[in-house]
Amino acid sequence: MPPRPIRSFSLLLAWLLLVGLAALTGIFTPPGEWYASLAKPPFTPPNLAFPIAWSLLYLLMALAAWRATRVAPAGQRVTVLWPFVAQLAANALWSPLFFGLHWMGLALADLLLLWALIVLTIRRFAGVSPLAAWLLAPYLAWVSLAAYLNAGVWWLNG
Amino acid sequence: MPPRPIRSFSLLLAWLLLVGLAALTGIFTPPGEWYASLAKPPFTPPNLAFPIAWSLLYLLMALAAWRATRVAPAGQRVTVLWPFVAQLAANALWSPLFFGLHWMGLALADLLLLWALIVLTIRRFAGVSPLAAWLLAPYLAWVSLAAYLNAGVWWLNG
Repeated sequence: MPPRPIRSFSLLLAWLLLVGLAALTGIFTPPGEWYASLAKPPFTPPNLAFPIAWSLLYLLMALAAWRATRVAPAGQRVTVLWPFVAQLAANALWSPLFFGLHWMGLALADLLLLWALIVLTIRRFAGVSPLAAWLLAPYLAWVSLAAYLNAGVWWLNG
Repeated sequence: MPPRPIRSFSLLLAWLLLVGLAALTGIFTPPGEWYASLAKPPFTPPNLAFPIAWSLLYLLMALAAWRATRVAPAGQRVTVLWPFVAQLAANALWSPLFFGLHWMGLALADLLLLWALIVLTIRRFAGVSPLAAWLLAPYLAWVSLAAYLNAGVWWLNG
């Protein structure tokens, strides 16, 4: 049991809010007719897979950040957590770039940056909490798939 | 740290699989043109809200059942957990009834039964783990909303 459970719950709430903010950009720039009209690469998941996957991934990453924040020594928190915040920003940027502006090339560049930042985040988290690092593994896997899909769609429709 | 972490992970996997099975009926009987053509009651959420909410709720309920199983004394496990399994069955039944068969009245009856079973589950979980009980609170809230929507749709289109 944590010594100050209320403060721990506020911390979880704070991370959920920040992650939720990033998720909002995806909600406000959803796939539409443009995406439906594009040629898709092989193994493109059905549309329903995306809100299901992202809901779970956003929750897992908020839990990971919460865990990492709680176990990191006070002087190391910024070092451990800035990659997470940076990857969140790259994540939030992608939907507006791809579904909003239809800039498939720049969106792919953003995804590759996101991928690298997630790897860096996982390494920083692993230094304080293996659990926090593992909670991000599905996220990295999904972003790998997303990069393939982005590249494939760009290749087929660029 | 649990004394046997591998067994604990297998247990989590087992609950995730069972809950995932229940979630499958919803994936195979999604809203379609019939639902789109129905008159909707006030405050009906946008379609995207449903896969997002259910993804999170299914994960939370699997975590709750995992937690309850781990802390319940061996002789009490069936007592503590059968309501959860029963509510899962009622949950799995709803989408086929509503979206599959269009039986709005029977679907509503199933939802009311589900609601009562979730309350019973929460009470049983609370006896062994307050956390496990609280993890089900969003689920009960959402099913309350679902009952209102089901009743409203039935009223407007029955």
